[in-house]
Amino acid sequence: MTAPVVAVVGGGQLARMMAPAATALGIDLRVLTETADGSAARVVRSSVVGLPRDDGSMAAVLTEPRSADVLTFEHEHIPATAFARARDVGVPAHPAEHALLYAQDKIEMRRRLTGLGVPCPDWTELPGPGALEGFLRDHGGVAVVKTARGGYDGKGVRVVRSVTEVTEWFAAARIGGPALLAEAKVPFVRELAVLLARRPSGELRCWPVAQTVQADGVCSVVVAPAPDLSPEVEAEALRAARTVAEGLDVTGVLAVEMFEVPGDGAGGPRVLVNELAMRPHNSGHWTIDGAVTSQFEQHLRAVLDLPLGSTETVGPWSVMANVLGSGLGELTDGLATVLSADPGAKVHLYGKEIRSGRKLGHVTVVGEDLHDVRDRALAAAARLRGETVDG
Amino acid sequence: MTAPVVAVVGGGQLARMMAPAATALGIDLRVLTETADGSAARVVRSSVVGLPRDDGSMAAVLTEPRSADVLTFEHEHIPATAFARARDVGVPAHPAEHALLYAQDKIEMRRRLTGLGVPCPDWTELPGPGALEGFLRDHGGVAVVKTARGGYDGKGVRVVRSVTEVTEWFAAARIGGPALLAEAKVPFVRELAVLLARRPSGELRCWPVAQTVQADGVCSVVVAPAPDLSPEVEAEALRAARTVAEGLDVTGVLAVEMFEVPGDGAGGPRVLVNELAMRPHNSGHWTIDGAVTSQFEQHLRAVLDLPLGSTETVGPWSVMANVLGSGLGELTDGLATVLSADPGAKVHLYGKEIRSGRKLGHVTVVGEDLHDVRDRALAAAARLRGETVDG
Repeated sequence: MTAPVVAVVGGGQLARMMAPAATALGIDLRVLTETADGSAARVVRSSVVGLPRDDGSMAAVLTEPRSADVLTFEHEHIPATAFARARDVGVPAHPAEHALLYAQDKIEMRRRLTGLGVPCPDWTELPGPGALEGFLRDHGGVAVVKTARGGYDGKGVRVVRSVTEVTEWFAAARIGGPALLAEAKVPFVRELAVLLARRPSGELRCWPVAQTVQADGVCSVVVAPAPDLSPEVEAEALRAARTVAEGLDVTGVLAVEMFEVPGDGAGGPRVLVNELAMRPHNSGHWTIDGAVTSQFEQHLRAVLDLPLGSTETVGPWSVMANVLGSGLGELTDGLATVLSADPGAKVHLYGKEIRSGRKLGHVTVVGEDLHDVRDRALAAAARLRGETVDG
Repeated sequence: MTAPVVAVVGGGQLARMMAPAATALGIDLRVLTETADGSAARVVRSSVVGLPRDDGSMAAVLTEPRSADVLTFEHEHIPATAFARARDVGVPAHPAEHALLYAQDKIEMRRRLTGLGVPCPDWTELPGPGALEGFLRDHGGVAVVKTARGGYDGKGVRVVRSVTEVTEWFAAARIGGPALLAEAKVPFVRELAVLLARRPSGELRCWPVAQTVQADGVCSVVVAPAPDLSPEVEAEALRAARTVAEGLDVTGVLAVEMFEVPGDGAGGPRVLVNELAMRPHNSGHWTIDGAVTSQFEQHLRAVLDLPLGSTETVGPWSVMANVLGSGLGELTDGLATVLSADPGAKVHLYGKEIRSGRKLGHVTVVGEDLHDVRDRALAAAARLRGETVDG
C-alpha cells in the first residue's frame, strides 16, 4: 500500500501520541527528534535525529526515503528556514507559516485577535519599563508580563507588581531577546479550552468545551465537557475559537485557552482568550479515550485534508489528570498498582526519563458520574506518581 | 524509563494492532517479521526479519539489544525450537508451549476438550479413508474434514460427502503431512465467539459474547454483544470458554469460536466449541473502539502479568466489518470517501499490499441502534473496497 507520509517536527509526547492514530489509518509517520531515544522515536519506525533549524535534518524528514505528503509540528518553535525547506521540495506545511506565526509570537497574536474582535484581556506592548509602570498604574498595580516568544508551560510568564520583577527580561529584550507584553490579570471564574480541527479545504469541527485546571502554570486536570457551562458562555467560547481558526487560517488542531469571567452584566464578554496552540494540546488528551475521534487522529486527518471525524463523546464525563515527574521512582513501578486499583482507568505513558516537573504521562477516566470519574482520575495519577492513595 | 519489552513472533496485522496499546502503556514492542515492510514492521521501531524456526532470528528478537520480558505470538505456527530458544535465555513465553499445543493441533484440542467435558461437535481421528467412510455413514453422509495442523481462515477445512474429496489430504498424511480428523457438520443457529484474557497469576476477564458471521471460511462481520442472546446460552458459552482457558492454562488473549445449536430440549448443550485461537483474534477487533480495554492492550497486560482492564463496552452495540482485498485499487482511494460519508466510522488499515482475499483492514461502528450501526459498518467496508454505496 502506498501510505500517506506525515513528517512531524518534534519528538515529544505529542508526536508520540500521533503514532497510534497513524497506525489505524495506514499513515506512515516520520518524526524529527532531538534525541534518538525520545518519546516519539521509541514508537515509530522512522525518525531523523536533528533540529528544525538544520537544513539537512529538515531535508531528511521531508524527503527520505520518499517525499512526505505534508509537514506538521508538535511545537511552535519552528524557524522560517524550516518552512523554506518544505517549500523547496514542494511539501505543504500545516499549519502554514502565516498561521503558526500567531502561536509563536504573543504580540502578533494579540494584535491580530484584537483586529478580529476576539475578546482578549487588556494588553499592551512593552517597549520599556516605563510602559509597564503605566500599565500597572492603570490595572490596580498588577499585570501579567509575558515574553512574546519562547514560552511554554508557564515559562516566559510572570505575574508582577513592580518593574523590578522583570528587570532581566527588559535587559534581554534590549540585546535581541524576546519582546515583552503586559496583560491584565483577569479575575476569572475558571479556565476553559476549546479544541477544534480545521482542514485546508475549510471543514471545521469542535469538541465540547472543556474546563482546564492549571498548577504552577502547567495543565494539571481537564474535565470534558466543562461542568455547568451556561449556553451563553459555551456559544461565546465556540464563536471565539471559530473566529480564531478561520481568521488566522489555522489548519490542523487548534487549542484556544480561555478565561471564563463573571461578565459585566451589560453584554460584555464572558470569555477572554488567553493562549493559542496550533497542534494537539494537553487540554485535548481526554479525546483519546473520551471522544469518537481523538485530537491526534483528527490532526492527521486535517493536515492531510481528509474528512474530519465525529467529535462526539463516548461517555458523559471524561477527566484527564497529568502525571508530572516527582523524582520518586519509575512510573512502571506504579503501573501495576494503578491498573489493579481501577480496571477502567486509561493510562498513557510517554516513555521518558523521569525528571522533576516533566510531563511523563496522563490518565483518563470516562464515566457517568462526574465526582466518581474525577476522584478516580486523580487517584490513578497519584498512584502513578508513587503516592499512596486511600481506598 | 526502563520500559518492559514484549517480543512478538509474527509481523501481520495482529502484531501491528498491538503497537498502539504498547505505545499507551510505555511498552517497547519488538516483532519478528517475515518481511521488512510487513504490516507490523511499518509501525514499530524495532523489528527482526526472520522466521521463528531460525535460531538466530529468535535469539535477536528475544535478546537484542536487551532481553525481552516476555515472548508472545500473533499466530499458532510456532515450532518447539522457538520455545527452546526462549527457555535458553530465560524469557517466559505466553501462551506457554503446553497451552499453545491445543491451538496448533486440532486432534490434541478435541481430545483435551472432550476430557474437560467441554461440549464439542462429534468428532473422530482419521487414520485412513475407512474411518471417514464410517463417520460419513454415522452422520448423514456429510462431515467436516480438517487437517490437524496448519489451517487458518478456512484453509485446511473441507465439508465433504465422499472420501474422494480429500484423497490428496490422506495421501499427504501418509507421507508425513498433517493428520486428519472429521467433525459432524453442526446444524447451527449462528456462530458465537467468546473472547477473554487470562494472566499467569490466574486473573481472567471475558468480554461480552459476540456473534460472528463468516463468508467463505473467513470472518466477515462481528456484532457485539450477540443480539438476542438467551441468558442460558450466554452462561454456557462463558462457562465453556472459562473451562478451556483454565483447563488448558491459557495465558494472554483466548478466542473460543462456537456454534449456537438449537438444543435437544433435554438439557443437552446449546453451544459447541468449534475453534480456539490463543492470541488477539478477528472476532475481537471491535474491542479497539467498542470496549474500555481492547484485546490488544489486554493481551499485553496479560502476558506481562499486569492487572487486566475493564471489558465493559463503551456503547450499546459495536459492529466490525472486515475489508478483504478485491483487487480493485488502493484502499487509500476509498479512505476519503468513507471518512466523508460517516464521520463516526472507525477505520483500521493494515498497511498491506493488496492481494485478492487478503485481510487489508476493518471498520468498526459503535452506537445505540443495532440496525443503523450494522448498516453503517457494512457501508463503510464496502466503500473502502471501492464499491459504490447508495445514500
